Amino acid sequence: MINNNNKILVVGSVAYDSVETHAGKRTDALGGSAAYFALAASYFSTPAIVAVVGEDFEQTHIEFFESRDIDLSGLQIENGATFRWSGKYDPNNLNYRETIDTQLNVFAEFKPILNVEHKAIDVLFLANIQPDLQLDVLNQTSSKPKIVAMDSMNLWIDNNQEDLLKLIPKVDIVFLDETELRELTGIKDLIKASKSIISMGPRVVIIKKGEHGLLMNSINTDNSFSLFACPALPVDPVIDPTGAGDCFAGGFMGHLASLGKNISEISTEELRKAAVYGTIMGSIAVQGFSIEQLKLVSTKKIEKRYNEFVKLTTIS
Amino acid sequence: MINNNNKILVVGSVAYDSVETHAGKRTDALGGSAAYFALAASYFSTPAIVAVVGEDFEQTHIEFFESRDIDLSGLQIENGATFRWSGKYDPNNLNYRETIDTQLNVFAEFKPILNVEHKAIDVLFLANIQPDLQLDVLNQTSSKPKIVAMDSMNLWIDNNQEDLLKLIPKVDIVFLDETELRELTGIKDLIKASKSIISMGPRVVIIKKGEHGLLMNSINTDNSFSLFACPALPVDPVIDPTGAGDCFAGGFMGHLASLGKNISEISTEELRKAAVYGTIMGSIAVQGFSIEQLKLVSTKKIEKRYNEFVKLTTIS
Repeated sequence: MINNNNKILVVGSVAYDSVETHAGKRTDALGGSAAYFALAASYFSTPAIVAVVGEDFEQTHIEFFESRDIDLSGLQIENGATFRWSGKYDPNNLNYRETIDTQLNVFAEFKPILNVEHKAIDVLFLANIQPDLQLDVLNQTSSKPKIVAMDSMNLWIDNNQEDLLKLIPKVDIVFLDETELRELTGIKDLIKASKSIISMGPRVVIIKKGEHGLLMNSINTDNSFSLFACPALPVDPVIDPTGAGDCFAGGFMGHLASLGKNISEISTEELRKAAVYGTIMGSIAVQGFSIEQLKLVSTKKIEKRYNEFVKLTTIS
Repeated sequence: MINNNNKILVVGSVAYDSVETHAGKRTDALGGSAAYFALAASYFSTPAIVAVVGEDFEQTHIEFFESRDIDLSGLQIENGATFRWSGKYDPNNLNYRETIDTQLNVFAEFKPILNVEHKAIDVLFLANIQPDLQLDVLNQTSSKPKIVAMDSMNLWIDNNQEDLLKLIPKVDIVFLDETELRELTGIKDLIKASKSIISMGPRVVIIKKGEHGLLMNSINTDNSFSLFACPALPVDPVIDPTGAGDCFAGGFMGHLASLGKNISEISTEELRKAAVYGTIMGSIAVQGFSIEQLKLVSTKKIEKRYNEFVKLTTIS
């Protein structure tokens, strides 16, 4: 793992989450896709956040991000309250959760604005926000970043598919879960579905399967495909799955950013390593509520878990 | 893969299945745990079947087994009809199936009987039948086989748990799916649950997760545990999942039998290779109804798919 100066910009949400699982509950704990992503990525490269919070956003959280060298020059602080989400997970099956309340607050009017430095960013992650905002961010960049990646969700696939289909050809890496990929492409088989996304422009599709790991399909320079099947790291106990996908993306993109390369120069091997680093960061995230475990980890612990993962999955 | 003379005995069912999936249907096609297992294992070692069929069992099926060098000296042919099962898979989700009809027929009175040669078998697989019959088979062996493995199902965990708990300490390898393992042990976490099985005597627990692959936990000679996470091989299209678990076990046990070793001499690496061979045989089985694809495969094709699987899962 290389911790160099490669900057990675994430545009997404910073939120206060109230979460209940079999293991307990937390009220107004730090969350949001950009918060999780940036924190996970901060162990690999230097993240910057473009997001919006309200006047109630706590100074201790600002200081915490800064303690991780996360650039907050793009964090807008607006009149009003920070985005709040509350949810409850099925105590018997963490794959199911019920949203109890969503208060968009200042996030409802979020207009991402890139400053001069951010317009020239090397690596850009468009976390799960409205596709027209994701497109707008991409249009603000002064030149094509070395790597652009995106996440999305069923809501946008259902309601904003046209914008989504404009965005996808402009990105290099697409993160989706199984259901989202099938819904977006109308193709049941995950490999065929990933190829149909790749045929639109992206080089890499990561199909997230939660506790069952992931499939990654990528196109090589000779136009052949390289498929990678990666199990999850079994973790016991899982405390709170919130943010696991964003932490996966943070570890994945953080590792790629640390390489300092254009997407076209990145080998299959490096993509696979990135998928494992993402898996590790996701496994750490779920071991605590909010960012509780994520903030306690170290590069050394991450490397240790990486090596454990290699042992867990190596055939011979 | 070594095809030597190591014999492997399977005790289970031979049946005629009528199956409907999104891909079509078959009526009275060859099935049953012992049939699937033996056929899959026949590409690695020399299987023998102890099972019962009715007078209606077709000569072509006898001849087919014999063409694969499968020893049928333990196949009882009784007055009456062969075990029949019919089921229909959810066209949108092959993880769900409905049993339309079960006619046990001659299988209702099945009493496994080992002949002299079978009593001295090296490798024994107790497929999913009543635990007291599994125990009875084990008691018929003249000396402890080099490897004894067993499968089971929720029905026996619910209704015959006492017998099951007598059997488990006497076997080396336990095959169960996630739900079965959790139900049997009362432990939600799969790794802890597998350790509780190992504490009863077995050295290896294989947790089958269907399309999501498997976890295998095993105890080493120094009493440490070795955990292996193995994804499934993505297959498109899946035609019929019936028998995939038995073919997995057949490939797994077939490879172990080919080594000619006692369970205590088998390395973690060999167990992992066996898990991959099992995965390959399961992936072949689901690509056709009944044994349609399984009978067309060859050692060469299996090795090719093994190598593809290594590429699919190797990080770097």
